[in-house]
This record gives sequence, structure tokens and C-alpha cells, in this order.
Amino acid sequence: MRLGVTYHLACSRRLAAAKARDIAFEQTVELPENALPAGVAARVAGRVESVESLGRGRSRAVVSFDPVAVCGDLPQLLNLLFGNISLKPGILIAGLAWPDELLAALRGPRLGIAGLRERTGAHGRPLLCTALKPLGLSAAQLAELAYRFARAGVDLIKDDHSLADQTSAPFRERVERCHEAVARANGETGGNALYFPNVTSSPPELLERAGMARDAGCRGVVVNALPAGLGAVGAIAAATGLAIMSHPSLAGRFTFSERTCAAINGRLRGPLGPVAPAFPVPAGGIDAARVPHWIERYGVDTIFLIGGNLYAQPDPTTAAARLVAAVRRHSHG
Amino acid sequence: MRLGVTYHLACSRRLAAAKARDIAFEQTVELPENALPAGVAARVAGRVESVESLGRGRSRAVVSFDPVAVCGDLPQLLNLLFGNISLKPGILIAGLAWPDELLAALRGPRLGIAGLRERTGAHGRPLLCTALKPLGLSAAQLAELAYRFARAGVDLIKDDHSLADQTSAPFRERVERCHEAVARANGETGGNALYFPNVTSSPPELLERAGMARDAGCRGVVVNALPAGLGAVGAIAAATGLAIMSHPSLAGRFTFSERTCAAINGRLRGPLGPVAPAFPVPAGGIDAARVPHWIERYGVDTIFLIGGNLYAQPDPTTAAARLVAAVRRHSHG
Repeated sequence: MRLGVTYHLACSRRLAAAKARDIAFEQTVELPENALPAGVAARVAGRVESVESLGRGRSRAVVSFDPVAVCGDLPQLLNLLFGNISLKPGILIAGLAWPDELLAALRGPRLGIAGLRERTGAHGRPLLCTALKPLGLSAAQLAELAYRFARAGVDLIKDDHSLADQTSAPFRERVERCHEAVARANGETGGNALYFPNVTSSPPELLERAGMARDAGCRGVVVNALPAGLGAVGAIAAATGLAIMSHPSLAGRFTFSERTCAAINGRLRGPLGPVAPAFPVPAGGIDAARVPHWIERYGVDTIFLIGGNLYAQPDPTTAAARLVAAVRRHSHG
Repeated sequence: MRLGVTYHLACSRRLAAAKARDIAFEQTVELPENALPAGVAARVAGRVESVESLGRGRSRAVVSFDPVAVCGDLPQLLNLLFGNISLKPGILIAGLAWPDELLAALRGPRLGIAGLRERTGAHGRPLLCTALKPLGLSAAQLAELAYRFARAGVDLIKDDHSLADQTSAPFRERVERCHEAVARANGETGGNALYFPNVTSSPPELLERAGMARDAGCRGVVVNALPAGLGAVGAIAAATGLAIMSHPSLAGRFTFSERTCAAINGRLRGPLGPVAPAFPVPAGGIDAARVPHWIERYGVDTIFLIGGNLYAQPDPTTAAARLVAAVRRHSHG
């Protein structure tokens, strides 16, 4: 099977056929057909499968590509999909039809929804997540916060995405202290809270930090996926088997329509060949009091990340405990 | 010295002071001041240095940050600069004032303009670069092209950015053959053409490929910097000392105004603390016949990348030789 890419083009059906053909060549051989040696176009260039009008000067085209061009590598996939056409106006990628062999090479989540539910023991309800912050606290202070959040019943306690290897809370010390603090809380509550440190950095440090996290007993890590590079995200998963929580830093967009959110949720949770379903993580100014509303809206296969709103309350850990109780009550009843 | 960031804000001076303060906190501690432990804001949060009106509902604000937050790491720098605010509307980063200690940690180009001139022996004129393509040719066929371009006097012969490790021309075989072909041509011409292979992939393969390129004798490599991650670019430089030519794949913008081009050129070439000046590489549909015009426009400290336009001519290597002659004639007199 070939990789099918559906493009929305800002031009009429009449012009779209030529534009689709340009894309098919630009994203592979990067030369027009008359400049190619015999046989190369047929073997390597994309193939225009269909072109149709969407009305009002817009068109839809499907171009298929041989997945061999991607080498099973995420940066190379980004290059095939977005490379040169990201520099041109009037082209939107609206859909992808994936060959299973390519998905198998890219792998996707190691734990996914089922794995995270098993590790946290959280079934039939959304997971709650909060962030350790602010930058500037010591490792001991962050560990104390982690302990309290775990005691309050928060499932996932992650580093804020700005915590790197600053001298205020060096990576190794922070990971060891925070993991130990969450394990201690679990021992007292019988719970299964998890601590995810932020490992974002440059290679090879990034893989070393992920390895340190795994060796300390962590089941997952946080990565600022775009600053670090999507290839690095896959490399961490391949090297460690850990769960990865991705932060949208640098993504350039925050306010999605409800329809877009529903589509994102559907894609993350839905079947996709051999790729495990993943949790969406709505975040960014979620008011704890409104979480029941958001459970109705997003469903139980969701991780709610409540950070700032807890810290804004007089005692963040009491606020976290109230939130945990509200989620359990709402989900079971 | 602190890292100074100048923002253009889409709001009046009256609102801009509060917005600048939000940015100063959002990009560091990610909590409002009243939710912070004593002393943290003063130590860690950004500091609003100035706010002024730009007229017509726009303002300029300067916020300074302690560079310690960046840990000398490029992904973490991207996070500090663009992280959460990339998700919000009405904020543009318009300028940066760099502390030398941060620049020294990030390092920048290992060769820079002077180093590439020394390695290619090209002084007082622009460098010429072309790309090996299309994807689908064998390593032997690409090496034959590399040989001919080097014989024609092209300074830099680089892999097309879509060449990865496809079975048609596997990375190691391609690098060895193309480097040997260019060295053979240099032996015949007395020239100093260089071959730069594309090493874009995920870590750790990306660093392994860069190491292979260096071991084969290459002086530089090509990286699709955004798909691979900017941290990976720095890691290649640190691990190998090679020159790096970056492809703008995924950058989302191509058609720059003349003023923007001049600004990019000025930044790349200009003094920047301990960072070596770098060549701008205008590319993308440059007509070989117009190169003298572009030399006038961009000056001699430029690498002109002419790919498709050479391949569109009956014999690409004859066309390359003509182009080389035109550049030398034009530059010297």
C-alpha cells in the first residue's frame, strides 16, 4: 500500500490537476518530469490519484507516495509531507491514509491509553495530571509538592516544561527526589501516581536524561516535541519504552474550535493500524470547578492537566484533593 | 548580562505593560506573581525593561531573562523564547540582545564564512552550490553527477534534502562514492570542491551519519533543521566540527520581501559576539542566467544554490561550467 495524502488546494479544479502533479514531483524527485532520467518518475515520484472540485475556487487532490522514500524515519516523513510545499501558499494537508508497514516502523505510543490505565490503576474515569513548578524551586521543594499531589490522588505529576537542568533543581537530583517522593506517597495511599520528568534537551543529552528517568523508576517523561524534534520523541520511545507526554511549545496555535478538538480527540483515540490509542490532554487555564463539564464534553479517555488553577488556590494540594474527589464522583456516578 | 527580548504587541501602550509582565512570568515560572513563593519572582521571572507605543494600537516591550534558565541548550532557548506565547495571538519577537556567555554556549557555525572560504579556496567571490538529485538514482549515478559538477568548478555539491537512507542509494555507499568522486575531480582540476551529504534522521542515527560523513572525509553535511530539531543541528556541530548547511523544509514561508532578505543576510554575516559569521544561501528557482544580477544584489559573501535550473538544461554539467565562468568573470571584474 502507498501513503495517501489528501490536499486542499486554493485553486479551481482546472488548475488543481497541474498543482497536484507539481506536488507529487516536488516532494520526491524535486525536478520536473522532462528533467528526469527514464523510469525515475514512475518509480519514485508521487502519483496523482484523484482531483475534484470543492467549489468556490478550492479543490481536493489525493497524491500517493511509495513509503520506501520515508525510510521509516519521522523527520523524513515530515520532509515528504511538508518539506518544500510548506514554503508555498495555498496548500493544506487535509488527510492521510497510512500503510500499516509505515505505521509499524513509526510505532507510536509504547503505553497508550490501556498501558497508562494499567500503570495508574485508573479505570473508567479520566486521569488527572498536574505540573511541578515554578522554575526556581529546589529539587527538594519540587519533590515535596510531588509528594503532596500524589497523596491527594493526582494520577500524573509532571515537570513543568520549563524545568530542564537548571542549577536550582538539577535534572538527576530532581528526578531521584521527585520519583522517590511519589513512590513514598503511593506506599502510604496504596495508589499508583506516576512522576514524569521533562527530558527536553539536545541529543545525545536528551536520550541520556530519558535513560536516567527510566533507571530511576519513572514510567514516562515529558518532551517539548517541536523544540526537541519529533524524531527525538520516537528515539526516546524506542530507546526506553517509556510513555511520552508531549508539550505543544512552539506549535503556534492554542485556541481550537470545538470541532477541531473533537477531531484531535478522535484521531488520538481511534484505531490506526498497529498504533496504540493515545490520550488527549486538554490543558491551559482549565478551571478545576469546571472539570465535570469537560468530562461530559471530552469523555473519560482524557487526561485533564490542571496546573495554574490549582496553584492559584490557597492550598494547591487541598484543591487537588477536592478535584480528585469531584472527578471520581462525576465519573462513577 | 541578561537575554533581552523585544516584543511587538498588538495592543495599546496602556495594555502592553500588563501583557509584557504576563510574558515575563509565562515564559519562566508559568504562574502569576501572587501564586509564587517569596523571592522566586525576583530570582527567576523575566523583568520588564521598557514599554513604549508604536502607534496605531501597537506597542513595543523589552523583557530581559536570566540566561541561566536556558542551560546553554537550544531546545530550551526555543522554549523560553517561543514556548507558551507561540500559542497566543498578538505577540511577535522583533529582536534579541544576546549575552556573550549564552552565545558561547550555543557556539554557532564551526567553519563560518572564513572557514568555508579556506576549505574551498574561493576568495573574493560568491560560492556556487548545487544539489544531487533526483531521489531514485543509484549511489553510483549520484556520484557520477557529483564528479561532473566538481569538474565544472561548482564549490559545494550537496545531497538533495530528500536523500536519506533509501535502498536506491543507501547513505554509507552514497557518501563514500560521492566523496571519492569529488576528490577525484579535485585531483584532476586542482580544485577544492566539497561534497555535503544529507544526514537528516532521528537521533541517534543522525549523529552516526554525521560521524560517518566526517570519517569519509566530508567537511560538511546537510540537515533539514526543523524536521530534525535545532538541538540536533548543534549536536552535530559539537560532535563532528563539520560545516552545516540547513534546509528550510517545514519553515512555512518562502517568499520574503527584499527588506527581509537583506535583514537575514545582515544577521548571518554580521558580528555577533563569539559567533562566526555564516553564509546566506538564496535558493529555490534561481535562474543561472540571472546570477550576476543576484551577486550585485546580495554581495560576494553569499552561496548561490542552483539546482533545478541546471537540471532543466540539456546538459547540467555544461550549464554548471558556464555558470561558474560567469560568476568568476562577474566577481573579478
